[in-house]
Amino acid sequence: MQEVIKASGEREKFSPKKIYRGILLAGGSKTLANETISFVEKNLKKNITTEEILTFVLKNLKKERGVAQRYDLKRAIMSLGPSGFPFETYFAAILREYGYKTTLRNLLQGKNVKQEVDIIARNKYAYMIECKYHNSSGNYAGLKEAMYTYARFLDVKKHKLDFPWLATNTKCSDSAKSYAIGVQLKITSWNFPKEESLQKLIQDKELYPITLIRDLSNETKHKLYSAQLMFVRDLIRYPEHELKKRTQLSDETLKKIISQAKEILNY
Amino acid sequence: MQEVIKASGEREKFSPKKIYRGILLAGGSKTLANETISFVEKNLKKNITTEEILTFVLKNLKKERGVAQRYDLKRAIMSLGPSGFPFETYFAAILREYGYKTTLRNLLQGKNVKQEVDIIARNKYAYMIECKYHNSSGNYAGLKEAMYTYARFLDVKKHKLDFPWLATNTKCSDSAKSYAIGVQLKITSWNFPKEESLQKLIQDKELYPITLIRDLSNETKHKLYSAQLMFVRDLIRYPEHELKKRTQLSDETLKKIISQAKEILNY
Repeated sequence: MQEVIKASGEREKFSPKKIYRGILLAGGSKTLANETISFVEKNLKKNITTEEILTFVLKNLKKERGVAQRYDLKRAIMSLGPSGFPFETYFAAILREYGYKTTLRNLLQGKNVKQEVDIIARNKYAYMIECKYHNSSGNYAGLKEAMYTYARFLDVKKHKLDFPWLATNTKCSDSAKSYAIGVQLKITSWNFPKEESLQKLIQDKELYPITLIRDLSNETKHKLYSAQLMFVRDLIRYPEHELKKRTQLSDETLKKIISQAKEILNY
Repeated sequence: MQEVIKASGEREKFSPKKIYRGILLAGGSKTLANETISFVEKNLKKNITTEEILTFVLKNLKKERGVAQRYDLKRAIMSLGPSGFPFETYFAAILREYGYKTTLRNLLQGKNVKQEVDIIARNKYAYMIECKYHNSSGNYAGLKEAMYTYARFLDVKKHKLDFPWLATNTKCSDSAKSYAIGVQLKITSWNFPKEESLQKLIQDKELYPITLIRDLSNETKHKLYSAQLMFVRDLIRYPEHELKKRTQLSDETLKKIISQAKEILNY
């Protein structure tokens, strides 16, 4: 049985199915998915890491336009934080695309302390959202995070909040998920719940973060962030002269990133 | 104003009062406390660290028997963990000296998950204790720790538990303390609450950890731990031949540590 070493150091069984599913989610064809798996399987070796496998996958995905970039979503989100884009800002922007009204970084008076609530999101219900962001793989949100989110909710729910919600860009432990059921805590993690996971929320509406564009300099990222351009989509949503005015980027840089945005969005 | 750099990197005002109080708590005379402060003040310099101040203090405390060792309690407790003595085992032993019945590392079924409860302690009431141990200065237990302790308590209180309790060998943040009042969470931290702080619980009954003895080799620590000798007091409580049998230590080593134990306890 082929084993793979994860970022956390743990080992798991090599799963072609995961790669297959990931490629389809990223808009690749079944042919491309099968070809990629064959390519990876030819290159398997003892003690291979998930990182090395990802490199092989991405190499092969270049055959179809934009698939490689979209497949690399997880890593792009991990590089949001260091770029200055707080995860809660990105997640709130996603929620707005799904019809929620959101407010960011709220200070609410609890019984004895002021609680900082990352996002309040409202549709039919009002949710108190705690965001747990990790900028490296191998971390996950666990039972403790689920418990303090619930305790924070209890402390502030008098502000007309209906449910607690824990959102993370990584995985969530099984005990956190089980606990969540008992206290009606909603969880959104990278791959859970299957039909409303972070990955799926992003891919279904193509809400790719701008960090999916390769080789952005820190200066460029900073200018995009200051102009509140967070989605790759934003780069084709506005006319070029407006983007230029808002970001102060050079024509050359702007053309390059718009061309990449089009590739990612198959536009 | 003289500033001191703490282990966390923060700066604080130099406080002779803290040193004075610490020396008296460690059984030193007022004369010794005043002398020590003069000695430290002579050696103050820009950007001095708390660590450097501690070295000056300890140097001067040698004039009275056992005071230096007892003053160094905080550091001795921080080196418990790496010695293999879990903090919860030490804290439970302290509580037993104060009349509690304790059970360690309990697995209790919550609504949907099994919760690991570090200590259950009973006197008039039954307490669920969460221990938060740090092996370096500059860390502290904060609001999140207080919140998940409370949430864990809510999940398991049906097992006839009356109150949650957070115990830590470092400090506790102000927000954790305020929050605790609102949910009837008991807190024991290094210096809080003043009359029942960890430091005071230990010093009032001389429940010094064996790591207060200097230059214990790891092998010796391990043998003491295996023999369940955790307090300095244990080394004078039992006859030497029994200690020898339980620990398998050489006569020489045993004599050396018993002599230090007597010094610490002024015996």
